[in-house]
Amino acid sequence: MKLAFVGGTGPEGLGLAMRFAKAGHEVAIGSRSTERGEEGAERVREAVPGAKARGGDNPSVVADADVVLLTFPYSGQQATLESLASALEGKIVCNVVAPLEFQQGVGAVAVQVPGNSALQEAIAQLPESRVVSAFQNMSAEELQQLEHPIEADVLVCGRDTEAKNIIIGLAGEIAGVRGIDAGGPSQSRYVEMLTSLLINLNRKHKTQSSVRIVGL
Amino acid sequence: MKLAFVGGTGPEGLGLAMRFAKAGHEVAIGSRSTERGEEGAERVREAVPGAKARGGDNPSVVADADVVLLTFPYSGQQATLESLASALEGKIVCNVVAPLEFQQGVGAVAVQVPGNSALQEAIAQLPESRVVSAFQNMSAEELQQLEHPIEADVLVCGRDTEAKNIIIGLAGEIAGVRGIDAGGPSQSRYVEMLTSLLINLNRKHKTQSSVRIVGL
Repeated sequence: MKLAFVGGTGPEGLGLAMRFAKAGHEVAIGSRSTERGEEGAERVREAVPGAKARGGDNPSVVADADVVLLTFPYSGQQATLESLASALEGKIVCNVVAPLEFQQGVGAVAVQVPGNSALQEAIAQLPESRVVSAFQNMSAEELQQLEHPIEADVLVCGRDTEAKNIIIGLAGEIAGVRGIDAGGPSQSRYVEMLTSLLINLNRKHKTQSSVRIVGL
Repeated sequence: MKLAFVGGTGPEGLGLAMRFAKAGHEVAIGSRSTERGEEGAERVREAVPGAKARGGDNPSVVADADVVLLTFPYSGQQATLESLASALEGKIVCNVVAPLEFQQGVGAVAVQVPGNSALQEAIAQLPESRVVSAFQNMSAEELQQLEHPIEADVLVCGRDTEAKNIIIGLAGEIAGVRGIDAGGPSQSRYVEMLTSLLINLNRKHKTQSSVRIVGL
């Protein structure tokens, strides 16, 4: 599949792109600047010998993608989706955004957003796209350590079952990872908030933690 | 240890009381009515032969307890803690409350409470108690199926490290369960919200699910 990463030069986008390039997919790293997108693609090719990775500005990487992953901070979501809405029409869009901020002495703090979750806000902004959410809970550092096996469940939320199944399949191509259908758009709020819990657990216990749902 | 359950006649309180009675602790089931507290204790004794279980009204079961577990719905938290504040002075109090409501067609919906989390609100109301939170994510049904091993992590939040360690120790006495220090009071919000995610996963996948944190 052709996967595009909007805001793909951040650690989460690069980590996911490396893992999916390793699994044999074509990845395209998008950025606001063409140059930085190309630099991101170079980092993927360095990490994954033989990777099919190219870079460019966000609109150009989105154009021929089968699946578009949104891997930018929440603060940029509204403006970025506004500018890309028509380019994303008809496409499967996977929102990796978790709204949070860092507070001195507390750590990561999940932000309650007006639309309930970043996913629901993205769905409202992209009515012609097939928007789901996933991968928010995966540690960017762990993703980039390609020799390091990841043991984690990826909770996939959204209304479009077919789109969710495609993302569940993609998640399962990362060694040790399982994708789970976690329900409708309103569930994404809990998954997004879990990111803050995990970041703070990692800091407290000096580790990289992830979540498994037992009994599924 | 002597464990008291305030609002212990609900399924979560009874399930925890059964598990801890099975582990050899003395349990006291509290209710607003003495009679219903006694009925709850009888259910524990029926489920766990030889259990040291007694029942009574909430103030009477709290009086000589080493650890008090709060196992009532969020809607009752403020009034119940107001009435018990002096009886709980100096005691270790473990809040099991997860603020949520059920909405038609959606399932469990986590409620954002004024004090950020049920734990932080309880801490504010009980300044002379040693308040932590835990066990919100455990399925009441699964707890009551005593022959059924539970594979789960219990995330313990609070400021009082000694109190947290006592609760982590208690959690570890339930076969298959591990207690984890999940950080300060503000972390409890994420753990409380996780309850709604799990309830909805259970309904969707017709199972009893629980959470494991991998990498700790």
